[in-house]
Amino acid sequence: MHVFTSAESQDSTAHEQVVFCQDRQTGLKAIIGIYSTALGPALGGTRFFPYASEEDALRDVLDLSRGMAYKNAVAGLDLGGGKAVIWGDPERIKTEPLLRAYGRFVQSLGGRYYTACDVGTYVADMDVVARETRYVTGRSREHGGAGDSSILTAWGVFQGMRAAAEHTWGAPTLAGRRVGVSGLGKVGRVLVRHLLDDGAKVVATDVSEKAVEFVRQAYPQVDIVPDTTTLITSDIDVYAPCALGGALDDDTVPALRAKVVVGAANNQLAHPGIEKLLADRGVLYAPDYVVNAGGVIQVADEIEGFNFERAKLRASRIYETTRDILRLADADGVPPAVAADHLAERRMAEVGRLRSIHLN
Amino acid sequence: MHVFTSAESQDSTAHEQVVFCQDRQTGLKAIIGIYSTALGPALGGTRFFPYASEEDALRDVLDLSRGMAYKNAVAGLDLGGGKAVIWGDPERIKTEPLLRAYGRFVQSLGGRYYTACDVGTYVADMDVVARETRYVTGRSREHGGAGDSSILTAWGVFQGMRAAAEHTWGAPTLAGRRVGVSGLGKVGRVLVRHLLDDGAKVVATDVSEKAVEFVRQAYPQVDIVPDTTTLITSDIDVYAPCALGGALDDDTVPALRAKVVVGAANNQLAHPGIEKLLADRGVLYAPDYVVNAGGVIQVADEIEGFNFERAKLRASRIYETTRDILRLADADGVPPAVAADHLAERRMAEVGRLRSIHLN
Repeated sequence: MHVFTSAESQDSTAHEQVVFCQDRQTGLKAIIGIYSTALGPALGGTRFFPYASEEDALRDVLDLSRGMAYKNAVAGLDLGGGKAVIWGDPERIKTEPLLRAYGRFVQSLGGRYYTACDVGTYVADMDVVARETRYVTGRSREHGGAGDSSILTAWGVFQGMRAAAEHTWGAPTLAGRRVGVSGLGKVGRVLVRHLLDDGAKVVATDVSEKAVEFVRQAYPQVDIVPDTTTLITSDIDVYAPCALGGALDDDTVPALRAKVVVGAANNQLAHPGIEKLLADRGVLYAPDYVVNAGGVIQVADEIEGFNFERAKLRASRIYETTRDILRLADADGVPPAVAADHLAERRMAEVGRLRSIHLN
Repeated sequence: MHVFTSAESQDSTAHEQVVFCQDRQTGLKAIIGIYSTALGPALGGTRFFPYASEEDALRDVLDLSRGMAYKNAVAGLDLGGGKAVIWGDPERIKTEPLLRAYGRFVQSLGGRYYTACDVGTYVADMDVVARETRYVTGRSREHGGAGDSSILTAWGVFQGMRAAAEHTWGAPTLAGRRVGVSGLGKVGRVLVRHLLDDGAKVVATDVSEKAVEFVRQAYPQVDIVPDTTTLITSDIDVYAPCALGGALDDDTVPALRAKVVVGAANNQLAHPGIEKLLADRGVLYAPDYVVNAGGVIQVADEIEGFNFERAKLRASRIYETTRDILRLADADGVPPAVAADHLAERRMAEVGRLRSIHLN
């Protein structure tokens, strides 16, 4: 794995800055990846994970920070893309001194990178990190935080689904459609509620019996199926992957009965080329990072001083953004995932360029 | 090559922060290594060099920044250790935009790293870098720069040599001693002048005929010998390596006739263990980074607003520092190189710890 672009190495990257941070006393080993700051300070969460090697940690932060740059750009935020990883087992090594050492390194970048929660880090951790740096979002409500970001993630996914429904069937509603939700975690269960409120029929599944039980109690009208394979091969109009990444692969795509895929999961396409396979099968895929941006929109709002109504309004615009991307894809004859990437790249280039107009 | 310390990998490091910086438009690929900021902002030059690979560039910046931490600590500066490399051929890619892109990345660290000249970068380049960042030393005189840092490098080496002479022969002078100087570049030729002024006999060599000719004209009393092998096997009391690194290796040490080695070159010990070989042969070796700190003392003075007399006074203290290290080595029964490392580590730990006393 290399950091720099080079003609020889295929795995190299275009990142602006990659910062390795180490504090031997606390055992902190963190990598902060900044893909681009063309649109503003880079925002992205901190993943705390026991990677097998430094290479794995580096690869993950490079992938994730690039993804955040595209997500934040398409979401219309004045934020660049970044992400951080802390290498180690949070159960074993996460302590106040380690998190604060990490906070000092975030502070050392002077606001070029804002952090937030991700896998292995929680609101309470961000409150500790914030004792050393101002550049933290995802804080607790009593510290001006946005709270649980799954609320607006689900709201944004619902808006993206409305746009996809309109593109496919002519009206921006799921009323009367059968929607299959795979994953009934914090986001999935809120999405189920929005779908039911809109008049959809919901089929759902989760590997966790507890998650299933919650939905069974709260929404008895939901059809529970035993697994995702049953879900995607059943008679559904829309498939909403809301669990792990890689939901769309060479096995699942040919088996899909849904005409539309819109979900909250990250990295739904298992590998490059799947977007083409979906298009060839006539399945409309609304790119994951476009529709699941509600979460980052929610935490980004903390930078201004959190206002839920303002953040919700911005997350509601995922409807228009998704609609525009689907139209652009048709106009350009490319899959929506490609159209979304173009839109992100264009915004980074065009808006980033504006800084060439000098201001005092 | 890895950045982080780990039990498995032998080549890992203890660096505080390693920052990869990339700007694709200008072709900038820079790595800023910060070994420690326990004593203050990290200071060290920028090497612009066409490394064969990213690994080579990383390895060099890790080695060099660690070396600067030890040098700055022993020199008594309120500065940590850092260094940067720009990967590429300066003849081909060095441009105003590239240097300024680099300057923006130096600025992005908010003063945790101060840069300066090194191989492949010059005072004029630092003036360009300074158009984007305040954290630059080694600037031109008209911009408050310290000018040619070889002046005080040579002065410091001479002071270190006086201390070594005193330790060996009882008086802090080279009067009447035969000193062999290998390398008559900017530092070597000034050192020759100090030695002659002090009453030493000088034997010298350089691979460059031009450098030899300069000394032959300026100081006709200097004995010129054809090469370094001739120099070290001739009847000299002191050997002063002032050219490339690795001057002291398994071949040269057994051939040495000098009782004392004090020179301006960096990394004089070809590999760990050579300091022991020197001690076993009864050769007094004044550690390179202790005696050649005059240059960094000179550029560091720019941070306060350059004052040559103040910088010279500080470089003069290399006499006392070298004397103390040689005594400490005797007292502890270790080679001077080991004693110097201990002194650096102790200062970083003890002075760094003082920040635990809170100040508003």
